[in-house]
Amino acid sequence: MTGPRPAPTEAVPGGVRVAIDAMGGDHGPSEVVPGSLDYARAHPDDRLILVGDTPVIERLAGPLPANVSIVHASQVIAMDEHPALALREKKDASILVATNLVRRGEAEAVVTAGHTGAGMAAAVLRLGRLPGVDRPALAVQLITDSGPMVLLDIGANPDSTPENLAQFARMGAIFAERVQGVAEPRVALLSIGEERGKGDARIQRATELLDATNMRFEGNIEGKDLTRHLADVVVCDAVLGNVVIKFFEGLSGFIFDLWRTEFERGLRGRLGYLFMRPAIGRIRTVFDYERVGGSPLLGVKGTVIITHGRAKRRMIGFACEVGATTARTRVPELIAEALATDRAAEDAAGVTGERHEDGAPGIAS
Amino acid sequence: MTGPRPAPTEAVPGGVRVAIDAMGGDHGPSEVVPGSLDYARAHPDDRLILVGDTPVIERLAGPLPANVSIVHASQVIAMDEHPALALREKKDASILVATNLVRRGEAEAVVTAGHTGAGMAAAVLRLGRLPGVDRPALAVQLITDSGPMVLLDIGANPDSTPENLAQFARMGAIFAERVQGVAEPRVALLSIGEERGKGDARIQRATELLDATNMRFEGNIEGKDLTRHLADVVVCDAVLGNVVIKFFEGLSGFIFDLWRTEFERGLRGRLGYLFMRPAIGRIRTVFDYERVGGSPLLGVKGTVIITHGRAKRRMIGFACEVGATTARTRVPELIAEALATDRAAEDAAGVTGERHEDGAPGIAS
Repeated sequence: MTGPRPAPTEAVPGGVRVAIDAMGGDHGPSEVVPGSLDYARAHPDDRLILVGDTPVIERLAGPLPANVSIVHASQVIAMDEHPALALREKKDASILVATNLVRRGEAEAVVTAGHTGAGMAAAVLRLGRLPGVDRPALAVQLITDSGPMVLLDIGANPDSTPENLAQFARMGAIFAERVQGVAEPRVALLSIGEERGKGDARIQRATELLDATNMRFEGNIEGKDLTRHLADVVVCDAVLGNVVIKFFEGLSGFIFDLWRTEFERGLRGRLGYLFMRPAIGRIRTVFDYERVGGSPLLGVKGTVIITHGRAKRRMIGFACEVGATTARTRVPELIAEALATDRAAEDAAGVTGERHEDGAPGIAS
Repeated sequence: MTGPRPAPTEAVPGGVRVAIDAMGGDHGPSEVVPGSLDYARAHPDDRLILVGDTPVIERLAGPLPANVSIVHASQVIAMDEHPALALREKKDASILVATNLVRRGEAEAVVTAGHTGAGMAAAVLRLGRLPGVDRPALAVQLITDSGPMVLLDIGANPDSTPENLAQFARMGAIFAERVQGVAEPRVALLSIGEERGKGDARIQRATELLDATNMRFEGNIEGKDLTRHLADVVVCDAVLGNVVIKFFEGLSGFIFDLWRTEFERGLRGRLGYLFMRPAIGRIRTVFDYERVGGSPLLGVKGTVIITHGRAKRRMIGFACEVGATTARTRVPELIAEALATDRAAEDAAGVTGERHEDGAPGIAS
């Protein structure tokens, strides 16, 4: 990686350009800069654009690899700010500047560990929805007994319609197929019982809509089966998805804290720890949420990855990777194509239903 | 406890009469009969009525304690039957006969480990809703880092209205106060963010309704805080509550299975197990879901406890105990009184809103 440094606007053949919000997250640039540089060094054909306070980034980064550049942004949106207000007031916020690079075609993906609401709002306001998409959805890769499973929506918009859920299924299936490499992903609705159509009125209607598609729709999945990977894409409204993913964090953390306390308790606990150390490593590997990197906001014009506010160096690197893979495998373009095909099929079949909600930009503030 | 055996219809002063569906559950009478007899022996002032196949019960029970009697029922509803159909066809099903004892005033509480849907439907059809109750709700005592917390609705009815959620809060608070002994229970809505009112339209409206009550309403609780017992009563729609409680089961089971595998792995794992045995016992105690006994169906005329289909002897005993305590502390009567007071306060304040949904009996089939 020697030679003249390419301008950030220049696309690398076969590679993608990832704009990282270098200032975002609980740890800020001290974790984001080294984490994203790790990614850039491991993927010399991709290009990394660090967006944020140039002197801070330069100090943390040292000499930049040839595929890395900096775009200055003078402001940062803090984790406790109101996203819509902050976006209005801070025109030079790193997340806005990074998102604008995708808008102007100077990057394919934006990655942020900053304020989730601000990241989603910036994407919807600056990139807009893909043609045919009624609502974007935030997807997560949920840990199961056999690898990560796509769950969406986990928080872009509450009050989804059945039509929204059917679109989420299509978007999630494309992500599972292209980024996770799942052939013919199995799609399921998260609900109260496993019998097809059991649930509330929204789930019942979404069942009808999904039955009419060519997706591999398998009906309902219950809460008890989420860790068993009985589906590849699990679809639900934002409130349900958000509660599930946060309960996962809370409950697994609670259980691991109990074990930690026991392994630190007296001589007996510490001896137990010595014997169980390899086991603890194996269990940590199963619950390695850093490995899944970040959550894609599906349905906007471009690749947007929102990673955990607490993400450290290693997780930032994986977030860049999932962003690059999402862009490289053309997930946004394929979503637009698939929804156009679905719409044509619906029109041919005479299916009707509200498909566009004009007005609100489609992200809860 | 010698002397002539009282008839099952006779109330014991200070005691309550618990009718147990002796045939219900995955294990049937072989666990239910000894478990409920354990309860009866430990509580000689209460009365236990075993409902089911008399010869089977007699063979399992042996000589009956003085406070125990049998009421014959010739049929059983299997775990895989359709509840509404089964209730129509099996007029002499044990769950129906047991519920009818409460209807006729011959028992205060009915306890079942049988088909959840059948138990709830029998209660709604035979006992009916308490005056002022628009919908019954199934409550669970969720395990947290500091004792069980009330969560409802976990599955009686999907598509709850904001008014339903406000009533669930009142019913859950009375249960928490009377059965768990929590003074002034803190009430929260389960939602997508911790800011008051954040969530879907239903949660926003329920927030307004709860703000207008005299309950100790604390706004929203997020999924990540469910295990932290930040509220005493957590209210949500049935789909959300059901997914949460089943995900709790699935995720905690998944993690404990991983540890079990590790403790059985080779000499190192088995030695680790020897050192950690007391720790495993302590963690098991925290996750002792048998201890919470069963889920009360709140809002019907009488005490109805639905326990786990997999409940064994010990859990059945606790289920009888929670049933007896719920009846003894007059939870159903207090719910009716509180809702009448709430309604009078609403009328005085000029609050309007749909309060009665006539038509469906109020239990999803």
